[in-house]
Amino acid sequence: MSDAVIVAVGLTKFGKRDDVSYRELMGDAVRNAFLDSGNITPQDIEGFYLSSAQPELLVDQGHIANLAAESLGLYPKLASRIEMACASGGTAVRQAVMAIKSEMVDTVLVVGCEKMNENLKAAFRNLCIVPDVTWESSHGMTAPGGFALMAQLMMKKYGTTREQMAMVGVKSKKHASMNEYAHYRNPVSIEQVLNARMIAYPLGLLDCSPISDGAAAIVLTRADNASKFTDSPVKILGSGQALAPAMISANMKSITTWDPLRKAADTAYQMARLTPKDINVAEVHDCFSISEIIETEELQFCKKGDGGKLVEEGQTEIGGQIPINTSGGLMSKGHPIGATGVAQAVEIALQLRGDAGKRQVNGAEVGLTQNLSGFASHHVVHIYSA
Amino acid sequence: MSDAVIVAVGLTKFGKRDDVSYRELMGDAVRNAFLDSGNITPQDIEGFYLSSAQPELLVDQGHIANLAAESLGLYPKLASRIEMACASGGTAVRQAVMAIKSEMVDTVLVVGCEKMNENLKAAFRNLCIVPDVTWESSHGMTAPGGFALMAQLMMKKYGTTREQMAMVGVKSKKHASMNEYAHYRNPVSIEQVLNARMIAYPLGLLDCSPISDGAAAIVLTRADNASKFTDSPVKILGSGQALAPAMISANMKSITTWDPLRKAADTAYQMARLTPKDINVAEVHDCFSISEIIETEELQFCKKGDGGKLVEEGQTEIGGQIPINTSGGLMSKGHPIGATGVAQAVEIALQLRGDAGKRQVNGAEVGLTQNLSGFASHHVVHIYSA
Repeated sequence: MSDAVIVAVGLTKFGKRDDVSYRELMGDAVRNAFLDSGNITPQDIEGFYLSSAQPELLVDQGHIANLAAESLGLYPKLASRIEMACASGGTAVRQAVMAIKSEMVDTVLVVGCEKMNENLKAAFRNLCIVPDVTWESSHGMTAPGGFALMAQLMMKKYGTTREQMAMVGVKSKKHASMNEYAHYRNPVSIEQVLNARMIAYPLGLLDCSPISDGAAAIVLTRADNASKFTDSPVKILGSGQALAPAMISANMKSITTWDPLRKAADTAYQMARLTPKDINVAEVHDCFSISEIIETEELQFCKKGDGGKLVEEGQTEIGGQIPINTSGGLMSKGHPIGATGVAQAVEIALQLRGDAGKRQVNGAEVGLTQNLSGFASHHVVHIYSA
Repeated sequence: MSDAVIVAVGLTKFGKRDDVSYRELMGDAVRNAFLDSGNITPQDIEGFYLSSAQPELLVDQGHIANLAAESLGLYPKLASRIEMACASGGTAVRQAVMAIKSEMVDTVLVVGCEKMNENLKAAFRNLCIVPDVTWESSHGMTAPGGFALMAQLMMKKYGTTREQMAMVGVKSKKHASMNEYAHYRNPVSIEQVLNARMIAYPLGLLDCSPISDGAAAIVLTRADNASKFTDSPVKILGSGQALAPAMISANMKSITTWDPLRKAADTAYQMARLTPKDINVAEVHDCFSISEIIETEELQFCKKGDGGKLVEEGQTEIGGQIPINTSGGLMSKGHPIGATGVAQAVEIALQLRGDAGKRQVNGAEVGLTQNLSGFASHHVVHIYSA
């Protein structure tokens, strides 16, 4: 059984990218990944996963993995487009880990790409058809409303405060200010977050992730093959995934305790033979500020209900006990749906290689990524080491 | 390294299915697969792949794999929606083979589903955005035109005749008449095929696959685990996939010699340690009559250029040397995009188990499936044995 290691990573600038096409975005991320190694050619790529949530709606193009392979000059012998809404990227990384373990291929390219600003009407439609259209979103239950309900219940059940949520937003922009690839880089004060336009109580505009364009790429290979491509491989030690019922109104057991995240994290921790205490840096799915708070709890970086305190104490900042979303996360780096989960792996790889520049977490040896979709009904967790 | 075996198969009736929702279609196929074994429960399903090409456009629903898992009562620890246009199903089967080889899961459910007649305008749009929209389909190059060009060149280069193509259509309906799940079951004469409405010369209406709704499901597990679920497992001996440039107007090397199919088939034959002579029955991707003719050549059931003669001699009929598309194939069983590749595996499993009823190929021990997407730029091939 072969273990997967990351041998190259690449990103594009996230943001409103009217200057490039969907194809160019993908190409830029892959070129940056190939340049990152300096020693990878398209001929090395045997497996290819393209993570993209809805290019059919957003850029009017289907059959996108074959077109992507063509424009990237690839002739893979194993390939698929992967779609799991906002968790497409994490799912694609898991597929790549599996592909390498299966020994059907040695080297795999994972690309995540989304261009959402090209057609904003389609982008909103995209977001509205992620929840169950028949039973939920057609009755008004979309993402901000769903996560706002969770926030309200967290306040009631665990005493999480509006200010603590706002602090996630402040930290997010502070970290993003050190990331040249991030969508929003201007620092904000807690007053600005608290006074921003209300979206769904208690979540204001600066508690939400934006509509972004962007792409991310990673190249993975068998551990014993890594030296061909890099001197600083990053191992994937653990991979976990879990799905639970997707309907927030009916079948979810609890909206403040995320069982599928616990299951996915337990699988990853066990596979890596590590515990939450071993994690030095994590990229988690902060689609909303409240998500990050619940995630730090479910990933067991603190006790259940203490996620708000963790951010309030500054423990999730760079320099704290467990720096979270050093890249700026979804809220400030941006959230180009299909790219997000792949970009999380890029940030952790940079951190573990010591290549994260101004936002480097000193001595980071073990990292974690967590990517979710829907009303937190599906999670993918990976654990990495230098 | 664990080998994958099919332990259960299920289908829905293909056709214009106004009587059921997308969810019900999926559910019916899965229930039929569970009943086929009699010994599978949702708790046994660790891996879940949903093959569906464009539910976002066709039935207005995204994030479909999580919703599907919910409605099927599954809690998988490995899951993804797989999209590779018309080859989504074959790709999903390949992912399942890989998942089992990786030893990350033991038992995997693959479901293919598409409901195309609910919104015909969306279905046509679906088909128009499969080719490269920027460079091809926006200039009028869609599937019938592309495959018609291949047909014209086959006539010129190899002497393939219009009548030979029509004979594929006649055989297709003859086989489908014996399949209660098929969309079109009325036999047709060669005159009817030749005189049908012209779509793109030389291909008439009865040379084309229809717009169908339908679903198919298979359950796979490790070989050493199969006896828990069935007494008649079907082994997957070989799996191959290959992509080539997707643009028919620019980068394809030849439109009559399908290099990526040769590569995918070679990989599958080598992995299975078998040759084309060993295959007793095959389901191939007859999106158009000319496709089946080219495929029998590229799969090496006959010499290049002799595919027309093969059908003319009756060798591809049940009772012939290599019965092709005993189910009726895409042209008559129907072509619900995401279901097609999975349904091909269902038919071969039934044939190898001796469960194909009136259309049983006597003594079938080894079978093959071939699923393609785009202008034949992407192929997936699997080889099976009883």
